This record gives sequence, structure tokens and C-alpha cells, in this order.
Amino acid sequence: MSKPLGFEKPLGMRDILPDVLEKQRWLEHQVKACMKQWGYREIGTPTLEYYDTVGGASATLDNKLFKLLDSEGKTVVLRPDMTAPIARVASSLLKEEPLPLRLMYTANVFRAQKNEAGRNAEFPQLGIEYIGSSSVDADAEAIALAVSVLKEAGVPVFKIAVGHIGFLEGLLEEIIEEKEDREKLKEFLYHRDYVGFRHYAKGLALPEKNEARLYELLKLRGGKELLERAEAITVNGQARKAVNNLRELWEALEAYRVEEYVLLDLNLLRSLDYYTGILFEGYAANQGFSICAGGRYDGLMAQFGRPCPATGFAVQMDSLLEAVDYQPVQNKKFLILYHANRRTEALERARALRVEKEAVVITQRKEEWAQTDFSQYTEVIDLTGGEAT
Amino acid sequence: MSKPLGFEKPLGMRDILPDVLEKQRWLEHQVKACMKQWGYREIGTPTLEYYDTVGGASATLDNKLFKLLDSEGKTVVLRPDMTAPIARVASSLLKEEPLPLRLMYTANVFRAQKNEAGRNAEFPQLGIEYIGSSSVDADAEAIALAVSVLKEAGVPVFKIAVGHIGFLEGLLEEIIEEKEDREKLKEFLYHRDYVGFRHYAKGLALPEKNEARLYELLKLRGGKELLERAEAITVNGQARKAVNNLRELWEALEAYRVEEYVLLDLNLLRSLDYYTGILFEGYAANQGFSICAGGRYDGLMAQFGRPCPATGFAVQMDSLLEAVDYQPVQNKKFLILYHANRRTEALERARALRVEKEAVVITQRKEEWAQTDFSQYTEVIDLTGGEAT
Repeated sequence: MSKPLGFEKPLGMRDILPDVLEKQRWLEHQVKACMKQWGYREIGTPTLEYYDTVGGASATLDNKLFKLLDSEGKTVVLRPDMTAPIARVASSLLKEEPLPLRLMYTANVFRAQKNEAGRNAEFPQLGIEYIGSSSVDADAEAIALAVSVLKEAGVPVFKIAVGHIGFLEGLLEEIIEEKEDREKLKEFLYHRDYVGFRHYAKGLALPEKNEARLYELLKLRGGKELLERAEAITVNGQARKAVNNLRELWEALEAYRVEEYVLLDLNLLRSLDYYTGILFEGYAANQGFSICAGGRYDGLMAQFGRPCPATGFAVQMDSLLEAVDYQPVQNKKFLILYHANRRTEALERARALRVEKEAVVITQRKEEWAQTDFSQYTEVIDLTGGEAT
Repeated sequence: MSKPLGFEKPLGMRDILPDVLEKQRWLEHQVKACMKQWGYREIGTPTLEYYDTVGGASATLDNKLFKLLDSEGKTVVLRPDMTAPIARVASSLLKEEPLPLRLMYTANVFRAQKNEAGRNAEFPQLGIEYIGSSSVDADAEAIALAVSVLKEAGVPVFKIAVGHIGFLEGLLEEIIEEKEDREKLKEFLYHRDYVGFRHYAKGLALPEKNEARLYELLKLRGGKELLERAEAITVNGQARKAVNNLRELWEALEAYRVEEYVLLDLNLLRSLDYYTGILFEGYAANQGFSICAGGRYDGLMAQFGRPCPATGFAVQMDSLLEAVDYQPVQNKKFLILYHANRRTEALERARALRVEKEAVVITQRKEEWAQTDFSQYTEVIDLTGGEAT
């Protein structure tokens, strides 16, 4: 090869250097250990999937899917999430296993990036799927496990915001006749554009009382006391049912003793057509993006031919990395410098230390001694007869 | 979505079920712990790379690269190995760090599969790169670490076959004039087609003595005693240098006390134009495929603008999974069945057990009791007041 190679990577792709990766591996270990303790079993799926199979079943918007063409001209995707692939496995390889299935994963997922905004196209995620239970206890387990995960990972201060798609849709149906207007308002909520929401609501020229109910929706954030206020602004069956569902959830969360970490947020909307019930997002104090997110998706499994309810959540490792202040475990690390005629002795020392589970680097090259960053090591063993210094 | 989704995956892609993945994770842990003890630091690189950047620098044959087209029509590859990407990082992000660099990785790598032969297109690899040392001690460290890794992973019986590209090329140059013929013979060795090698050699109508030297090459497998035989069949400078290099290597491996695991194999050829010196492959008893493989690649770093020698190896997780008989650690796993009115008690019990690092599944749903596979659990706590039985 004559032309020197470049260093370019596809847009949004990145390298991870040892210090960051060490922190990431520690966090992964904490999170996985916690999920396993709650009875979840790890599963793996391919990096590449057919667009027709899991692309369309994903919660990710189509224009965010990382699409590619394979050698036969078929559209493939780098997996956008693990929920659809796991639903596929639960409906095929695992179809004989009785429900509920408690599965977990740790995997890199992908999003197409269109410009140089510095966003990542590949990022690590850990998560769980609890497949086959429609009970509010399953939702509570998912939320309580999310709390437990964030605590075990060492996130100092955080809240889980909990919403309900049934309440939101029920209320909007009761107030607004045109589906198009309801969809538009949902989009504003999805993008957290509350100014746009108010502006659009104003333009609908609704009766004053109904307009007030829409604005009240924006204020429905808080503890269980807001459930009464929520109930007061709707008579819609679906919305009432959602409020009862949330009341039962809150009781279960109290039984888990995690209610102090939970905030109800009835205008929370995480996806436009994916979730079917309770949904939630976890935030660390002073961070603008969520650390974990999930909810109930009772419609997905039917698409793979095994209709059943399901819930789950995923943890964004990149957010966790920012939220947690990690103190690397200061393990011992030895450096053995040796003169060629003492090699056997040097290797014996190294072997003995490694048997004791210590980390040891050995070197006999003089040119390396000069460059060595000795601060990397907790101890230096000099077998050079003074030549090294 | 009206049409039900299919279960198809791109050719060679697969799902990994919990039992297999548990074994894989255990093996990963053993291998990584060993590499860390030898002072290697983990690094990460993207799943997707530009073909022009790392595709051409890979040891993988071009027709085996997993090529795709991105949305702009550029050719990208799912990384075929980690050596070229790490060389890229060592030459860019890490270019200020003094040599040698000891880096390790755990990553899925990809190969294009052209037919339904059941071969995997995506497979997990763990490996190390030792960048910046031309010393035979670096080759010895790589081989001794490979031995240590296979022992820690629990491979019961294995051998590391060690060859040298310099010996092979030197001998062939001495005997055969035409480059084309030499390349052809190398290809037979690369494909381990010894019948084809003999046949082709015969067709060259060489002087009898030279033909005999070629056949002798095929027999050069054994302990250090064969180095004399190797020396006897060549006077070529490069080949002689290679024999001396192997002699020094053997001494270093004796100092590491790993020579019992090593077999010299002077017709070993792992790649047609990638390795530049000592190269090796590890085999478990009774397995036809290698578990780990590596060698010296002194030419790669220059392609990324930081010319320096390097060596390394990779472990094939799929081979390791087959070679090792894993007994899953029988951790306790509790199942708590509870009646709705005893939820608080059930959750308290679960919390207390999880504080003790036990795994606990809880359920109150009667329909689940009937289906539960109780053999999964080491202990069942029944808080149903007898309803569960």
C-alpha cells in the first residue's frame, strides 16, 4: 500500500480510550449485577438486522435508523435498539419458554447522524425486557429495578418521571375532535415544546374551560396528590383507567419503598406510537438528558406472532458515564525492569505476582526506561543492577 | 403495522441464548483478567469503519470483508478485526503516548458469508496488541500470554504452533527463481494444501536436492531440535536470521516456562502479506480450528504514519466456547410467590436477599405459578398461604 491511510471514521463513530472504557466497564458490571439479582437473564442478538424485520418494529423514528445496503442491495440496519430483536427471539427461539420472560442485554445500538453536530451514532445500552405480564406489578418492578440500577451505579441524585399514554390520549380525545390536531399536540409534547403546544392549543379556539384543561395538563407533575387533579379534568374512560393504573402503580412503588425517587409527569411522551401504557424516564440532577427510559409496549409482541403484554427499560451508558463520579480502584501495578542476564529472575517475579492477581509489566529495553511514565505504576522492581537509573 | 414481521436475519447473523451467553461472559472475564494482569489496557473502536481506512489495512482478504454502502454511497465495512483500528488509534489519539503501548480489546468482528454454509458472519474476539517493540521478548510475551490466557480459560490440552515468515520466504527465494511460483507455493501453505504443494513443486522440475529441501520444509514441525534441521537446508541470510530469531524466542519461552505448550511449525503461514516475522496459532486437542492466532506485523503502523514494530494476537471466542467444558456457578436463585395482601412482606424479603447479593424473582400472578419451571430456582418462598400449591 503506497498511499498513507487516513484516520477518518464514519460520522458519529468514535474510539474509546482506556480511562473512559475502564469506567464504562465498571458501570456495566454494577448495572448487570443488579439486573441479574432481579432474575433477568442476558441474551444477545446480531449487530445487523434486516430493515423489514426489526427496523419497522423499532421505537426509533425511521429517519433515525442507521440504514445500509448489503451486497445484494437489501436494506439492512445497524440495530437501533434491543427491544424489537428481543421480541423477535422471544417469539421464535424462545417461543416454548413459559411467560413471563425476564431478559436483559448489554449492546451497542445505532442512530443515523446527518451532520457534524458531534452526536454519537453508536452507543452502549444496557436494559431489561419483562415479557408476558400486563400486571401493574410488572411496571412497578421495572421502575423499582431502574431505581436500584441507578443507585448501584452510583448516580448521586436522580428522579424517575412516570407518565401514562392512556391518560394523555384519553384527555386529548375528550377535548379535541380532530385526530390531526391531537397528533399535532402530541408532537409538541414529544418534542417538549410547551410554547408550541400552548400556541397551537390557542389556535384551536376551544371553549375556555377546555383550553384551561389543556394548560392544566402541562402542570401535572408531582407526587401522588396530582392524581386527584388529573382525575378532575377528565371523564374519559381510558383516561380514568390510566389514573387508576397510576394509583395502583404508586402503591406498588411505596411497597418497594422507592416512591421518593419517583415523580408523576402526565404530559410525558417518549414516542409517538410505541408505548401503550405506563412509561418513564430517569434523570440525574443537573443533566438535561435522560439516563434511562422505558415503558409498557403491549403491541409489539403481536407483530412477531406471539401476542402478549410487555414492559422494559434501557440505560444509556453515555449518560451514566457523565452522571457518575468514578474513582478508579487503585489496584497495584508493578513494573519490573531487568537486565538481559536476569531475565529468568524477572519472569519468576512476574509469575509469582500474577499468581497473587497483581498486574505486572516487564521490560528489559533500555530505550523504554527513559520514556517510562513511572506514575502509572504503584511499585517498580529494578533488576538492572542500577543501569535503569 | 398489518403484515406480520418475519424472523429472518442477515446471512451468518445469530442470536445468543442465555445459557451460552453466561458461559461466554465467564470466559471473557477470565481472558480479560489475565490480559490486564500482564499490563494491557482495554480500548474500544467503532463497529463501522470506512473501507478506505481500515478495510485495506486488515489481514482479512478483501472478499471476506463485510462491505456495505452507507446513505451517501460510500463503502463502509463492519470491522474485520481490531488490529487495524487499534493501529489507527495508536497513530492518532494515542500518538503522544510513549511506546511500547500494551492494548487489549473485546469486540465483535465480521466476515462476509456468501452462502448458507452456517458460518458465522459476526463473532466475538478478545485480543492484545503490543506496539512499539521489535524485541524477541515482545514475541515471547505475546506467546506466553496466549498460553496463560488458554490456561485461565480452562482449555484442558492445547498447543501453540509457532512459525516464521522470514524462514519460509528466505528458503523459497533460495530454491525458486520465479516470484509467481513462490507465491503459488505460499498459497498452498496458506490453505494447508500439502498435496497441492508437493504436486506444484514436482511440476517445477527442480534439481533433486532442491525438491528434497521443499519436502523437508513440510516436515519442520517439532521442538527446538528442528532448528538445526531448518538451518541445514538453507544458507539464505533472511532464513538464517529467522532461525536465530526462533532460537532466541525458544530461550525466552523457556524462561517463561511455557515451552511445553509450544511447537515449532516452519511451514505455518497465517496470511499472505500481513505478518513480517514470528507468527503463531493455538489449538486445543481434537479441534480442527485455531482458538487463538497472531504474530508480528512490523509494516502496519507505517501505513498510519507512525512507523514502528508491533505484535499481538486474538482469541476466537467461538472456538474457546467449544474447547472449554464450563460448569455454571450454581448461585442461589430464589422465587418468592406471594398473595396480593402480602406484597409488602414479599418485597421486604426480596430486598433483604438482594442486599445479600442473592438473585430473587418475585411473582404474585396465579397464572404464572402453574407454568413456573421450579427447577430454575434453588429455593422457593411461598407467601401465598398455600394457594400456590
